[in-house]
Amino acid sequence: MRGFQRAPRIHKPLSGKSLTNARADIRIAVDAMGGDFAPASVVQGSLEAVRHRPEGLHVILVGPEDLIRGELEKLTGGGKFSWNDGLISLLHAPDIIDMHDSPTAALKAKKKSSIAVGLRQVHEGNAAAFVSAGNTGAVLSASTLILGRLPNVSRPTIGALIPTAKNPCLLVDAGANVDCKPRHLYEFGVMGSIYAGTMLGIPNPSIGLLNIGEEDSKGNTAAQEAYRLFSGGQLRFVGNIEGRDVLSGNCDVIVCDGFVGNILMKFGESVPGFLKSRFTQLAKKSVAHLLVALLARNSLRSVMKDLDYQEHGGVPVLGVQGVSIIGHGRSTPKAIMNMIFRAEDMAIRKVHQQIEESLSRVHPSQDQEPR
Amino acid sequence: MRGFQRAPRIHKPLSGKSLTNARADIRIAVDAMGGDFAPASVVQGSLEAVRHRPEGLHVILVGPEDLIRGELEKLTGGGKFSWNDGLISLLHAPDIIDMHDSPTAALKAKKKSSIAVGLRQVHEGNAAAFVSAGNTGAVLSASTLILGRLPNVSRPTIGALIPTAKNPCLLVDAGANVDCKPRHLYEFGVMGSIYAGTMLGIPNPSIGLLNIGEEDSKGNTAAQEAYRLFSGGQLRFVGNIEGRDVLSGNCDVIVCDGFVGNILMKFGESVPGFLKSRFTQLAKKSVAHLLVALLARNSLRSVMKDLDYQEHGGVPVLGVQGVSIIGHGRSTPKAIMNMIFRAEDMAIRKVHQQIEESLSRVHPSQDQEPR
Repeated sequence: MRGFQRAPRIHKPLSGKSLTNARADIRIAVDAMGGDFAPASVVQGSLEAVRHRPEGLHVILVGPEDLIRGELEKLTGGGKFSWNDGLISLLHAPDIIDMHDSPTAALKAKKKSSIAVGLRQVHEGNAAAFVSAGNTGAVLSASTLILGRLPNVSRPTIGALIPTAKNPCLLVDAGANVDCKPRHLYEFGVMGSIYAGTMLGIPNPSIGLLNIGEEDSKGNTAAQEAYRLFSGGQLRFVGNIEGRDVLSGNCDVIVCDGFVGNILMKFGESVPGFLKSRFTQLAKKSVAHLLVALLARNSLRSVMKDLDYQEHGGVPVLGVQGVSIIGHGRSTPKAIMNMIFRAEDMAIRKVHQQIEESLSRVHPSQDQEPR
Repeated sequence: MRGFQRAPRIHKPLSGKSLTNARADIRIAVDAMGGDFAPASVVQGSLEAVRHRPEGLHVILVGPEDLIRGELEKLTGGGKFSWNDGLISLLHAPDIIDMHDSPTAALKAKKKSSIAVGLRQVHEGNAAAFVSAGNTGAVLSASTLILGRLPNVSRPTIGALIPTAKNPCLLVDAGANVDCKPRHLYEFGVMGSIYAGTMLGIPNPSIGLLNIGEEDSKGNTAAQEAYRLFSGGQLRFVGNIEGRDVLSGNCDVIVCDGFVGNILMKFGESVPGFLKSRFTQLAKKSVAHLLVALLARNSLRSVMKDLDYQEHGGVPVLGVQGVSIIGHGRSTPKAIMNMIFRAEDMAIRKVHQQIEESLSRVHPSQDQEPR
C-alpha cells in the first residue's frame, strides 16, 4: 500500500474541454473530520463518489492520516478493494475543529485543521473545490479568509435549496450574515441568480425578497431599501414574497438576511419530526387511527422526505474565490457523496467566476447606494 | 323590532364579583366589517357567542347599520329569533377600512370606520373589549392611537398562539414591530409572560429568545443585547431557542421581532397546504398510494388542524390600555366566536392592568438600557 500521496496541481484550462473530459481532471478536497458521523460517514461517502465516477473524479481526504487510513481499510475490507488506485488520496491535518468550537478562535488556534488545510488546497490550485460537513461558522469564515472574497462582494453568503410545491428554490442567505444592509441583500440576489441559472438550469431566474407584505412600503428598513435596489437592478425581480409563499415555488431565488434564513430553514427542518410526533399521538387514540397510521407510513415517509433538508446535500458558499460547500452536521454518506458531486459541478461550471463577472456588470454603483 | 340601541356604560367594578356574575356585565365591541367574509361571518359568529352565553354576554356590532341589521335578520330567519333581546346591539359606523388600505392613511381619512368607532367604545368605557378580523395594521395602529400605550410600554405588540408538540406556545411579536431594539424584545417577553400566565394558566412561564444558536454570542445585534437584558431580568428566561425548537414546546413564550415573527407564522400557516399538495401528487402516482391517501384523509385532517392557525382564534394586542383582539382575515364564524370569548376572558382577567403592574416592577431602568 502506498503512503501519503501528494495531489498534483489541477490541470487547466478546463473550459475548452467537454464535460466528460473535464470531470476526469477534477480533484475535490474533502474534510474527513466534518460532521457528527466523521470520519466514517465522510470516508464512506467519498468512496461512493469515486466508485460512481470511474472516469476519474479524485477525492483528497483531509484529516488525521492514520485515522482516515484506518477507516478506508475498514470500509474496503482490509485491502480487497484498492482505494488507493489514484482516485483517493490522503492529506494529513492533525487539528480538529468540532461543532462546539468558536469559529474565529478555532481557526486561530488550530492552524492545521482539516478545514484550513483543505481550503488551502483549493486556494493553491491543488483542488478544484472543498467540501465539509463540519462547523458551519468555521468553514464559512475559513472559506472567506483563505479563498478570499470575490471583487464587488461585500459579504460571502450561503444558499440553501428548499423544497417547494414546484421546483426546489434557493434561499439566500441561509444563515451566514445576520445583520444585513440593503446592498448585501441585493448582492445575495445576484449570487443566488447565478447559482440558480448555472446549477439548477433555470434561465433568468425569478428573485423574490422575503418580507411581511407585498407592498414596497412593507418590512424593516433593510427590506424596504433592498426592494428599491432590486426594482432598479437588472435581475428578474418579482417583488416581495411572504412567509406563506416560500413553499409555493413561485420564485426561483428567495432573498433574506441570514438571521431570518437560518430560523426559517431550521423551523422547516423540524416540521417532519413534529408531524411524526402528532401522528404517533393520534395513532395511540384509537385502533382505527393506528391502522391508518401503519398503512400510511410509507406514503408519509415519501412526502416527509421532500421536507428533509438533509436529502438535498450541502449549501454552497457564494462570493468567495473558489468552490466551497458546507454540509449538514448529520450528513449521511449519501449526502457527502451528493455534496462532492455538487462541488464537482460547481467547479466545472465555474460558478464563482460567473458571479464575479455578473457582479461587475450589475452591481449598483457606489453613488446609488442608500447606505 | 327596535332600532339602533345605544350601549349603556359598562358596570363596574367587576373585580369584586364572581366570574359568572362578572360575565353578565361584559360588553364586547365587534367590528362587523372585519375580514374576508364580513359581515356575514362576523354577525353569525357574534350570534353564536351570545347563544353560548345566555347569562348575558353582550355584543355591540359596529359597522353600517342597515347592512348589519339585514344580515342579522337573514341569519335569524326574518324575525323568528329575536336577536335584539338585549344581547346584541348595533352601533353605526359608515366607513369601511378594507384589507388593502394603508393603515395610517385609512385611519386619517375614515374617521367613522368600524375599527375606530369600535375602539372608541372601549376607550370611553362602553365596551370591555374590541374584536376585529379586519386590516391588521389598521387595528393595531388604531388600538395604540385610540386606547393609548400602557406606561412603560415602548411598543405595543401582538402575540400569537402556535401549536407545538406539547402545549401551544405564545410567539411575540407576531408581526407588529419590524425594527426592534433590545428593550422592545425584553418588553415583549414581559407582556408575553403575563399573557401566558393569566390566559393560558401557566405559572411562571418560561421565555425563550428566538435566535440562530444557543450561545449568548449568537445572533444579530438586537438579539445579543436582548439576551443580556433577559439574563439580568426577573423573568424565567431559558436562553436562546433556534428555529428547530419552535415546535418542540419546550418554552411557553418565544420572543422575536415582528419581521421574523410574521414570516415564521405565515410559513407555518402554509405547511398544511403544502403537505396536502404533496399527498395529492403522491396519490396520483399509484392506486396503492391513492387508497392509502383516501384512508388516511381523516387522520391527516386531524393532524393538520393543529397546524391551522385559524383554529386558534385571534391574536391579542398587548401593551395598550384596554383589550383588543385581531383575527385572521379568513376568520370563520367559529373563529369570531372564539375571539369574542377570548376578549371576554382578557377583560375579566384584566390582562392589560397586569401588564402595567408587571412592567412597572420588572422594567429595566433607563440607565441599564443598552440602546
